[in-house]
Amino acid sequence: RDETDLAVVTEVMGTDDVDLVARYADVLQIGARNMQNYRLLEAVGGAGLPVLLKRGPSATMDELLLAAEYILDQGNPNVMLCERGIRTFESHTRFTLPLASVIYLHQKTHLPVVVDPSHGTGHTYMVPDMAAAAVAAGADGLILEVHPDPEQAMSDGYQSMTFEQFSETMTKCRAIAGALGKTIG
Amino acid sequence: RDETDLAVVTEVMGTDDVDLVARYADVLQIGARNMQNYRLLEAVGGAGLPVLLKRGPSATMDELLLAAEYILDQGNPNVMLCERGIRTFESHTRFTLPLASVIYLHQKTHLPVVVDPSHGTGHTYMVPDMAAAAVAAGADGLILEVHPDPEQAMSDGYQSMTFEQFSETMTKCRAIAGALGKTIG
Amino acid sequence: RDETDLAVVTEVMGTDDVDLVARYADVLQIGARNMQNYRLLEAVGGAGLPVLLKRGPSATMDELLLAAEYILDQGNPNVMLCERGIRTFESHTRFTLPLASVIYLHQKTHLPVVVDPSHGTGHTYMVPDMAAAAVAAGADGLILEVHPDPEQAMSDGYQSMTFEQFSETMTKCRAIAGALGKTIG
Amino acid sequence: RDETDLAVVTEVMGTDDVDLVARYADVLQIGARNMQNYRLLEAVGGAGLPVLLKRGPSATMDELLLAAEYILDQGNPNVMLCERGIRTFESHTRFTLPLASVIYLHQKTHLPVVVDPSHGTGHTYMVPDMAAAAVAAGADGLILEVHPDPEQAMSDGYQSMTFEQFSETMTKCRAIAGALGKTIG
Repeated sequence: RDETDLAVVTEVMGTDDVDLVARYADVLQIGARNMQNYRLLEAVGGAGLPVLLKRGPSATMDELLLAAEYILDQGNPNVMLCERGIRTFESHTRFTLPLASVIYLHQKTHLPVVVDPSHGTGHTYMVPDMAAAAVAAGADGLILEVHPDPEQAMSDGYQSMTFEQFSETMTKCRAIAGALGKTIG
Repeated sequence: RDETDLAVVTEVMGTDDVDLVARYADVLQIGARNMQNYRLLEAVGGAGLPVLLKRGPSATMDELLLAAEYILDQGNPNVMLCERGIRTFESHTRFTLPLASVIYLHQKTHLPVVVDPSHGTGHTYMVPDMAAAAVAAGADGLILEVHPDPEQAMSDGYQSMTFEQFSETMTKCRAIAGALGKTIG
Repeated sequence: RDETDLAVVTEVMGTDDVDLVARYADVLQIGARNMQNYRLLEAVGGAGLPVLLKRGPSATMDELLLAAEYILDQGNPNVMLCERGIRTFESHTRFTLPLASVIYLHQKTHLPVVVDPSHGTGHTYMVPDMAAAAVAAGADGLILEVHPDPEQAMSDGYQSMTFEQFSETMTKCRAIAGALGKTIG
Repeated sequence: RDETDLAVVTEVMGTDDVDLVARYADVLQIGARNMQNYRLLEAVGGAGLPVLLKRGPSATMDELLLAAEYILDQGNPNVMLCERGIRTFESHTRFTLPLASVIYLHQKTHLPVVVDPSHGTGHTYMVPDMAAAAVAAGADGLILEVHPDPEQAMSDGYQSMTFEQFSETMTKCRAIAGALGKTIG
C-alpha cells in the first residue's frame, strides 16, 4: 500500500472483490446502488478497513442507519455515512442534496457524515458553493470529483472540477471551517 | 407605518387584501400555496411594494421564475425569490430544503434569493446550521421564525427559535458571511 | 344555460369570477394549482353549484380532504374529488397517477372520486388504458381531454384524444364497468 | 423440482446463491433493492432460468430497461419486468404504484410486465382493486402476497391476503380480463 498521506478510497462492487480491493485501498466504498446489498455490507464489514457507506437515492435515514448496522455488526466500528443526494422531481440538478441530513445524523449517531456535492448536484459550477454549504452545515468530510481534464473524463466529467477549481473550493471551505472554529486537515 | 429599521413582511391571502395590507406592510409575501395564484400575483405586482415570492413545494425552478414574471410584468422590479423546501419522500424533515436552488437561481436571474430554513426543515434544532449553510451557499437573505416562547406559539412553534437561539444563529451566520467577504446588515 | 344532457364544467381562477361562471356552468372546477386557495374554496362553496376539486400535485390526501372541508363548510355538499397525478421523479409521464387514491378516498369519505388520466399521464397514447384502469380501481367518474384536432389545440394537445379515440375509450371503460356490475351513464 | 403446475419464484440475494436456488426454483427473482446489483444480474442471466426483475423504488424506466440488458446480454431472453411501486411523498400507501409503467414499457420493449399491488400499496384492503386496475392497464401478470393467516405472517402480513380474499381477487381480475378479450391461465 502507498505510504503517502493520501487515502485510497475504492468502491467495491461484489463480495468476490473485497479481498483484492482491501489489499490496495485504505477505505472501502459502498456505492449508493449497493446500499442495501446486505451480502456486500457483511463482506466489507469483515475486511478490517474503514468503510464509506453512500446513501441510496431513495433511502430513508432509518434505512441508511440500518445498512450501517450490517457493517458495524461484523465488529467494524469505522463506518462513515455519506449523503450524496436523493431522487426528487427536480430536474435542474442530477439529484437533490439535502444538507439537513448532516444535522439529523449527527443527532442520531456518532458516525461521521461525509457529503458528496459532485453527485449531489451533477454540475461542476454548483460544487464549490455546495461544498462550502456542507461544511457550514457541519459535515465531517467531503467527496469531490476532480479530474485533470474533465471534458476528457471517462465518466461524470460534467460534475468534475479541475485542479484549480478544487484548490479554490478548498480555500473557501477552509475559510468557512475557520469561521466555525474548525480546521480542515 | 412604523419608522424603525425593521421591515414588516406580511403574507397576502387574497386579492381583496392587497390594498389593506399594503398600507401597513413594507413587503408583501406570496405564500407557497399561492405561488401559482395568478390573480394574486398580478394584484401584488401592482401594489408598488417589494414582493417576497415563496416557491411552491412541488414547483420547478421554471415555474417559480414564470410566477415571478407575473409580478415583474406589472412594472414591479422588486421581487425576491424564496426557497422554503420541496415535498419529497423524506419524513424526518417537514420538507427537503435544496440549497442548490440558490446557486441555480443566481445563474438564471438577477433577482435576490432568500432561504427559509424554518419551514424548510420544520425543526428548530436544525435551523441554525441550515441558516449557516444557506449563507455559505450564497443566499441573499434568510427568513427565520422567532417567537418569545415557541411552546406557546399559535402556529409552527416546533420550528421557531427563541430570541437567544436567534442571536446565536445570527452570530454564526455573520461569521460565515465574513469568511466569504460579505456582511449581514 | 344549455339544456342538453351535457354538464358544463368550468374552472374558476379567482373569487371575482365565481358569479359570472356560475351563471353559465353546471359544475365549478377548482384547478390543482388553486387547491389551497382558501378564499376561492369558500367562494365556490357559496355559489350553490357542484364543485370539482382537483388534487394539487404535491398535496397529501389529508390536505385534499381539508380543502374539501372549506367548500362543504359553506353548506355545499356536492363536492367531487379529482385525482390528476402527483409530482414525482418520473419523467416519462407528465405526472404520476396513483390510482390507489381512489381506494383510499372511498374508505375515508363519502365524496365521489373522479380520475383525470389526461393530465395524470400527459400522453394521449396512455389515456385509454389508464382510463380503463381507473374504472377498474373504482373511480366514480373520469375527465378526459378531447379535441376535434389535437395537433391544433391551443393547450394540452399532446394529451388530448380525437373523438374516435374517445369513443373507443368509452367502449373499453363500459366493458370494464359491466364486468364489475356497474354502468356508465 | 416440484411437478405441479405451480411455478416456484424465489428471490436471489447474492451471486453465491444462484446455483443452489436454480436447482429448486422455476423463476429467479431479483428484488427491488438489487435491481442495480450488476454482478447478481449477470449471475442470474447465466443460470438458464426465467428471471423476474423488480423495479427499484427510485429507478427510472431507462434504468430498469438497462438492468434488464445485463440479464439479456448473458443470452437469457426470458426476463419479466415488475412494477412494484416507487418512493414518493405519499405516506398513506407504502409506495406509489404507477400503472402507466405498464403502458410505457409495452411501447418500449417486448418483455412482459408484471405488477405487484401488495408491495405497491402496502395495505391488504387496496390489493384487490389495484390488481383489477393493473389487469385493465394491460399487465401481463400479477404478484400477490397470500398467507393462510396474515396476522401471524413473519413479514409483510399487513399487505397479505387470505386464501378467500385471493380467490375473490382472481374472480374480479378474470372478469376484467374477459371484458378485454383476454384470459387468465
